[in-house]
Amino acid sequence: MDNLLKQINILDDLRQLKAEDLPQLAKELREFIINIVATKEGHLGASLGVVELTIALHYVFDTPKDLLIWDVGHQAYGHKILTGRKNTFESNRQLHGISGFPKRSESEYDTFGVGHSSTSISAALGMAIASQLKGEDKHHIAVIGDASIASGMAFEGLNHAGVTDANLLVVLNDNAIGIDPSVGALKQYLTNVKKGTQKQDNIFEALNFNYSGPIDGHDIPLLISELERLKTVKGPKFLHVITTKGKGLKKAEEDQVKYHAPGKFNALTGELIAKSNLSEPPKYQDVFGETIVELAEKNEKIIGITPAMPTGSSLKYMMEKFPSRAFDVGIAEQHAVTLAAGMATQGLIPFCNIYSTFLQRAYDQVIHDVALQNLPVIFCLDRAGLVGEDGATHHGVFDLAYLNCIPNLVVFAPRDAVALRNMMYTVQLGIDFPIAIRYPRGRGNLINWKQPFKAIEIGKGECLKQGKDVAILSIGTMAKNVEDAITNLGVSHYDMAFVKPLDEALLHKIFKTYQAVVTIEDGTIVGGFGSNILAFANSNGYKQHIEVLGIADKFIEHGSIHQLQQLQHLDSVSINHKIEHLLTFLNNS
Amino acid sequence: MDNLLKQINILDDLRQLKAEDLPQLAKELREFIINIVATKEGHLGASLGVVELTIALHYVFDTPKDLLIWDVGHQAYGHKILTGRKNTFESNRQLHGISGFPKRSESEYDTFGVGHSSTSISAALGMAIASQLKGEDKHHIAVIGDASIASGMAFEGLNHAGVTDANLLVVLNDNAIGIDPSVGALKQYLTNVKKGTQKQDNIFEALNFNYSGPIDGHDIPLLISELERLKTVKGPKFLHVITTKGKGLKKAEEDQVKYHAPGKFNALTGELIAKSNLSEPPKYQDVFGETIVELAEKNEKIIGITPAMPTGSSLKYMMEKFPSRAFDVGIAEQHAVTLAAGMATQGLIPFCNIYSTFLQRAYDQVIHDVALQNLPVIFCLDRAGLVGEDGATHHGVFDLAYLNCIPNLVVFAPRDAVALRNMMYTVQLGIDFPIAIRYPRGRGNLINWKQPFKAIEIGKGECLKQGKDVAILSIGTMAKNVEDAITNLGVSHYDMAFVKPLDEALLHKIFKTYQAVVTIEDGTIVGGFGSNILAFANSNGYKQHIEVLGIADKFIEHGSIHQLQQLQHLDSVSINHKIEHLLTFLNNS
Repeated sequence: MDNLLKQINILDDLRQLKAEDLPQLAKELREFIINIVATKEGHLGASLGVVELTIALHYVFDTPKDLLIWDVGHQAYGHKILTGRKNTFESNRQLHGISGFPKRSESEYDTFGVGHSSTSISAALGMAIASQLKGEDKHHIAVIGDASIASGMAFEGLNHAGVTDANLLVVLNDNAIGIDPSVGALKQYLTNVKKGTQKQDNIFEALNFNYSGPIDGHDIPLLISELERLKTVKGPKFLHVITTKGKGLKKAEEDQVKYHAPGKFNALTGELIAKSNLSEPPKYQDVFGETIVELAEKNEKIIGITPAMPTGSSLKYMMEKFPSRAFDVGIAEQHAVTLAAGMATQGLIPFCNIYSTFLQRAYDQVIHDVALQNLPVIFCLDRAGLVGEDGATHHGVFDLAYLNCIPNLVVFAPRDAVALRNMMYTVQLGIDFPIAIRYPRGRGNLINWKQPFKAIEIGKGECLKQGKDVAILSIGTMAKNVEDAITNLGVSHYDMAFVKPLDEALLHKIFKTYQAVVTIEDGTIVGGFGSNILAFANSNGYKQHIEVLGIADKFIEHGSIHQLQQLQHLDSVSINHKIEHLLTFLNNS
Repeated sequence: MDNLLKQINILDDLRQLKAEDLPQLAKELREFIINIVATKEGHLGASLGVVELTIALHYVFDTPKDLLIWDVGHQAYGHKILTGRKNTFESNRQLHGISGFPKRSESEYDTFGVGHSSTSISAALGMAIASQLKGEDKHHIAVIGDASIASGMAFEGLNHAGVTDANLLVVLNDNAIGIDPSVGALKQYLTNVKKGTQKQDNIFEALNFNYSGPIDGHDIPLLISELERLKTVKGPKFLHVITTKGKGLKKAEEDQVKYHAPGKFNALTGELIAKSNLSEPPKYQDVFGETIVELAEKNEKIIGITPAMPTGSSLKYMMEKFPSRAFDVGIAEQHAVTLAAGMATQGLIPFCNIYSTFLQRAYDQVIHDVALQNLPVIFCLDRAGLVGEDGATHHGVFDLAYLNCIPNLVVFAPRDAVALRNMMYTVQLGIDFPIAIRYPRGRGNLINWKQPFKAIEIGKGECLKQGKDVAILSIGTMAKNVEDAITNLGVSHYDMAFVKPLDEALLHKIFKTYQAVVTIEDGTIVGGFGSNILAFANSNGYKQHIEVLGIADKFIEHGSIHQLQQLQHLDSVSINHKIEHLLTFLNNS
């Protein structure tokens, strides 16, 4: 490590530096980030892009008294390192380590917890109004990217802020890319502003913001002088800053999508350190991505929709093959769902792929625009269940509960890649209801997943292992954990597959056969599959011992998926112990 | 009835009229709407405002082949009357009558079901893309108001549409008011456009729309010629139309808020027919509205927030008294919630008042910005449970289920106005968790509701009637139905008050005492309070007979609240029968 960064343990140390030394600090900070992320993994490109902006903001403003909010938070590594977390940064995203996102409980400099996009303007405005009412002279700065600002929520924040006299500075960190390249009319407009083909009298001025820019976001003296000037401007103001995602690492600048979160790489060259995964089963996202292309080749009604996750969802394969039928609509989950609903009214078959945690953004649209009208929209919910290192903001553990209460909706979780594939095949044959297909982050267990398609009967479960005394009822990929857990146990295992509708015929058989029933799901215990089984048993007068396994009623932190499963007692060892314990109990009672 | 409207039974009859006769038709249509709404009640002002626009759109476009989508749908009465529902219009909003909103199952002219705002652009774009892919030459028209277009979802739709070449026409019906006057920077901007102080090179052009207007929306020849011209314009286009809400009924034009849905009135003069309600208990919204003012007078940290419902929520009282501390943020539920979260980080006490059904729009913000950070935001959810004539789009029946699975959140339902008041008092004393307080539409049962404040213990239920054999556990205002149901029955009744956390100590006592337990809530049976009781009983090995009463797993139509409660077996007579039946069963077993 070099000299300047070494001197900075708390933020005040930064403010002791001379302004002319800051470019050197930027260089060191960038190297520090690269060196650690190269081996520890994490989000790279976004933080590299805002190194200068981060330094300038903390140099000019009196944080944490002045309140700085990073939208999404992918870009906040430099902020974390400069605000007292240099020495713990190696623990980034690891169990009990620091979070990959700003988090209030971690530091007073993290003024607002983030993870989902486009919240910063609303939060900063709330803080600015609070300061105004309390008579406190503070600055409130939201740093938001060009992908995030195009989301509806950001517009709502701007629209309100523009009619206040709150002391709010919105810094648009415009690098023309989110995780994937930005899309939409606003993006085109910003491009025109940058090229000078669009007048300065612009959208943000129309919304009553004092607009300035665009300026070079890698020029620290310019940033400092502009931020100093804006400190003296009253009311809502907007600074348009142009940056390069991945700045300072050539390969990251050249392939911004891959280097958003590149995994391990060579810190000097940027070369990715390839995992030898030739013999590994595919990621679920690729099962989705390849299967939709396969189906779309034969069924021209099939449409693919993703809100800003073409790479993460692997819809990009369809976007390449059928560009007129596959849509990246930007960070616009609400629009994505209702767009799909509109298409479904006209007989198209829209596959709307949204991460489980982000579907929370379109909950009303699922109820009001899709389910109420009983439109055959197919929701493919990637990253369902525990997602690992991204942590509490990103776990997809609420979906089973929040979808469960919606009438008309079928909720299905495939136990493996073949089941995902077959359900995708089934629904495009024609359905007269909406369906949510939810599957996890990462890889499955099947190498030979490309089997001939077979239709799945809606609402039917399946016995995977016949035993006695206890029936374990699993949903989705928890089947594998159960399978591993009971290899030496003589109990039965059913893949119930559907959270709703329940396979009542099978359940009657089960409840008439076994002494005890155990349900298991990688969603909240409250309101999910297990609660449906309790309701079924209660309605039908079954008095068996029932145990409901799932995610406890608290927010789950970050760590590897396996570690988190262990903490939630959902790994195969924990399940094994639970069943052994239950068998002992049954034998003794 | 006059001559022209009499001739119109199906829409084709309209197209047989000469263009010069259309103003006369507009006059008759307006009278027809006024005459029926005057006695049957419903939404008035919005439909009066678009009479000419409705006629012009159906005259120029080849509906239903061309696809017309009304945003929200308050304004669609003229549309309904002209498209085959003239003779059934008297049944508007009544049980088994036509819906107050466009509804796909009702007519092929209702291309998309609406009720919540700002969905029309997304839906119309989905349809337009479908037509394009199918090679069908159709027009797709979204009619959206100036309040709705300021919502984030509408922006997301515009942002996507602007980079397509879809054949989409967005008609902005600009009357400067939603249910309450429109707010926000975009509204100011539109006002400037109307005044000519804003250039025509405007926001919508910046988003790649072909913009035209503003034009007078009550001038039928002008509307027709402009719509005819726009039929020939390719790609996304935008027509800015200026109308007057309540047009043609003087009083409705003068008091646009009151005449949004005025109740019964004199069709000639517009005079409201006053209900003599001096001795009636207050509406819950007024209990909220008056109580927050009373509390805010003493506690300066209290803030009120409403997304576009100052009148409906009665936050207007606080907005009048403390304008700097009460905010109408427009139709922006997402922003409203995160704004409140931002304020809470700074020690303010935000009461965020959102109708239960509209909180669905901010589900992610409740989870991600409030509950995950455990911020003490107070959600006051008005219109919870069955709301009556507004029907399926507006019932607040999912909230207990979708909030139930969120960690950290307290979910409370007051059984009467005093409990609502006391909980509002309690939370502003200081809490370290978020809470949802949900209460119904309409009036309570207490005349003397302004009792001295008393703090409520969080998570505690209460015995309202001591009996034997059966314990009825109610949530919220279902307590009154239970009270009425069991006057002649010797069973016990508990107001459990909190869906979460459960009063486990009280529940243990109950389960140790009674033969059977009945739960009742005006929310979905799936995933709500009853499911929590089942989970409690199961975890603790209680094997009693339990019955869970609530809203069935289907969408509930429109009708009076009492009628709908009857259909859901939640009225006092149905509950009485249920308990009598249960007692007979228990005596025989």
